[in-house]
Amino acid sequence: MTTTDETTVLAQKAKTASHVLQTASPAQKSAALRRIQELLAERKEAVLAANKLDLESAEKEVKAGRLSSSLYKRLDLSTGDKYNALLEGVLDVDRLPDPTGQITLSTKLDNDLDLYRVTCPVGVLLIIFEARPEVVVQISCLAIKSGNAVILKGGKEATHSNRALFEVLQEALRTTTPADLALPAESVQLVSSRDEIATLLKLDQFIDLAIPRGSKQLVQYVQSSTRIPVLGHADGLCSVYVDESAHVDKAVSVTVDSKINYPAACNAAETLLVNSNVLSTILPAIARGLIEKGVSLRADERSLSAITSALSESERTKVTAAKEEDFDTEFLELTMAVKTVDSLQEAVTHINTHGSHHTDAIVTEDEESANFFMGRVDAAGTYWNASTRFADGFRYGFGAEIGVSTNKTHARGPVGLEGLVLYKYRLYGKGQGAGMYGEGKRKYLHEQISVEEARKRVAQ
Amino acid sequence: MTTTDETTVLAQKAKTASHVLQTASPAQKSAALRRIQELLAERKEAVLAANKLDLESAEKEVKAGRLSSSLYKRLDLSTGDKYNALLEGVLDVDRLPDPTGQITLSTKLDNDLDLYRVTCPVGVLLIIFEARPEVVVQISCLAIKSGNAVILKGGKEATHSNRALFEVLQEALRTTTPADLALPAESVQLVSSRDEIATLLKLDQFIDLAIPRGSKQLVQYVQSSTRIPVLGHADGLCSVYVDESAHVDKAVSVTVDSKINYPAACNAAETLLVNSNVLSTILPAIARGLIEKGVSLRADERSLSAITSALSESERTKVTAAKEEDFDTEFLELTMAVKTVDSLQEAVTHINTHGSHHTDAIVTEDEESANFFMGRVDAAGTYWNASTRFADGFRYGFGAEIGVSTNKTHARGPVGLEGLVLYKYRLYGKGQGAGMYGEGKRKYLHEQISVEEARKRVAQ
Repeated sequence: MTTTDETTVLAQKAKTASHVLQTASPAQKSAALRRIQELLAERKEAVLAANKLDLESAEKEVKAGRLSSSLYKRLDLSTGDKYNALLEGVLDVDRLPDPTGQITLSTKLDNDLDLYRVTCPVGVLLIIFEARPEVVVQISCLAIKSGNAVILKGGKEATHSNRALFEVLQEALRTTTPADLALPAESVQLVSSRDEIATLLKLDQFIDLAIPRGSKQLVQYVQSSTRIPVLGHADGLCSVYVDESAHVDKAVSVTVDSKINYPAACNAAETLLVNSNVLSTILPAIARGLIEKGVSLRADERSLSAITSALSESERTKVTAAKEEDFDTEFLELTMAVKTVDSLQEAVTHINTHGSHHTDAIVTEDEESANFFMGRVDAAGTYWNASTRFADGFRYGFGAEIGVSTNKTHARGPVGLEGLVLYKYRLYGKGQGAGMYGEGKRKYLHEQISVEEARKRVAQ
Repeated sequence: MTTTDETTVLAQKAKTASHVLQTASPAQKSAALRRIQELLAERKEAVLAANKLDLESAEKEVKAGRLSSSLYKRLDLSTGDKYNALLEGVLDVDRLPDPTGQITLSTKLDNDLDLYRVTCPVGVLLIIFEARPEVVVQISCLAIKSGNAVILKGGKEATHSNRALFEVLQEALRTTTPADLALPAESVQLVSSRDEIATLLKLDQFIDLAIPRGSKQLVQYVQSSTRIPVLGHADGLCSVYVDESAHVDKAVSVTVDSKINYPAACNAAETLLVNSNVLSTILPAIARGLIEKGVSLRADERSLSAITSALSESERTKVTAAKEEDFDTEFLELTMAVKTVDSLQEAVTHINTHGSHHTDAIVTEDEESANFFMGRVDAAGTYWNASTRFADGFRYGFGAEIGVSTNKTHARGPVGLEGLVLYKYRLYGKGQGAGMYGEGKRKYLHEQISVEEARKRVAQ
């Protein structure tokens, strides 16, 4: 049992470590990451032994029907190339560019009064995740790379694995060489009991950003229980709109991939909107494409009629009449709602009202319609003739993904290292006061400072 | 009396208008702002007549001692150049660069699969402010310029003035010429009764960002009553640290200006930290400089002793012994707490623990100490040899200020138009699905797209 006081002290330690991390150099971060990779390789057997304990408990739960076999699979660190991929991932993060210390504004307010805006770590991150123990390593490495301290709370199924990985991380931070490059071991913290979450969510003086990764229930619980900013998404209700000037092959390809490439993902499409002018020309081909891949359709009256009159009796068995709530449902399986709209505007309004502002696609050959859709749909991703499944940090080329955000502030869409930094204004003067400026006194210059001069001034 | 339903409908209308504003062109915004300026000039008499009604009520309140005379002054739109400044301010906003439609990332994922990150409006802003009626115009103009709809809630003292200004804004939006450039009149909404705030703070499906401007109580109430992201700051506890290698003239100038330039502002300094090595050499000059300007000092034991032994008896009357709570107090008047620290690290720790992460300054001639301070102090502004009073959107050269933020996400420090935009990912394809990529299939290119090509592609 961990007391509220112990949890508070742990968060406070993370905050103190985060102040040191604010000025961690790229060399320090790299030394830490390389030592982590090295020690994880050395301790492979110990980690897998701990993992085995979790797997043994999980096996009993699976047999008793209390745990799914897919969760069991995600828990297992020993299969295939998983452990090597984990080690390789650490080096991948090491190779990413440092997101801190970037100068994003530089203004000469006056001679000898220079203002710089410089990216810096957010502070202390709280990550709450389920099942996959490798998240402990991945997130800790991204936190270190971005100069943040991190408090990790994993699922109870992975207790032994998480603890073993965490101990390797702490030891690696303590034994980084050369020692003068070492970062505080307190930079990474692990909590394991569920009631500690409630305590942590109250500690907004120590924790700067909460990132829940897991079920909709988890995300909603975190969002509604804390004043700490939350980065994430509870829903992933993505739509594909097939415009009247859509190309049939693209409509089929985009819709089918959006639905079936990985139906359980948040960027899989749940709703298909079809312009009423293409109900008989394009919709049947899309319906056939989806049904061939095992998708069940829930269609509104007009689209149902168009599909049933075009498809064979055996194909039609997968199509039923939609209920209102189907257009607000994240199926996360091979089911898709189909709705007829009479205009592009109606499609946009439907998406903005029923969607989750995650990722939505239009299929059209008309550039003006595409621009209207991409401009007016209020989502983190608006796509023209491309599958919603591209919404992913690795596909976007970020090299890493912390999560996907449907927030309307800070970071939106797939979030890489950039989402873990903020900025700070630095002002370099010679003793000036604001009272020296104004009517009849000195005037502000507000001139841009050259990139070279700025870089020279703002050393890490 | 406004019902909850009416307030909800109003917020919903703002949301609908915000979807149109998402694609508002620079020409549309400019037409709206110019029409607002024109109509405000035309309706000056009507606005001032409404303002007079508020002033008459306020005068009674001042006489009864229920309202301060400074608040009365801030209410008055007729004095001096105030109305002309209001008109000029609208044109100033018109001249600022459009913060939306900026391309901040462009990556070729594959041939014919182009990803762009483009800045876009946040959506619907809720601004809660007190007293000064010109805020109605200033904020509405900044909202229009950044493509956001806005719901305004002003103080009850300014009810008539706010309503009159709001009606001019709505009429200007309805009568913008040419008519095809007009933006929805629903883009700007006004609520006047206090109980509507509680309703609005629950409407996170319609409101994207809340900005409370006013007392600490107001900001804290908003922060603790809503799931909507809040941009602002409850406290402004800024500090000046005088390092052992400080130059005495700079120490005096920076400390005195930070304290006395405008003591009621959030960027005024409240705490002076002095390195113990300069207690007898530099502190007396600072103390004398502050006392000459009418500042009372609350000094800890060591600094009190240094000051009293150096100052005359008459000067010393302004110096008393500090209590613990003085170092957590935002005085907002001519009072300053003075504390002795034995090292730069102790100063940094004190500021990170007791400060409000707003703006803090170091006075030193030592570049290494300055960099340490600016790197490790966790504040929106960290200054070297410059007054904390420079923390201001106009002084920074932003041309406008929505407010100052001590948030650790989204926007920090003085917030200009950039704080009112987010971004959206746009993906341009030819029908590709994510299933086409992976092991043994197509590979992602992740090549940067040239600025010219990106600009051509992502037209407003």
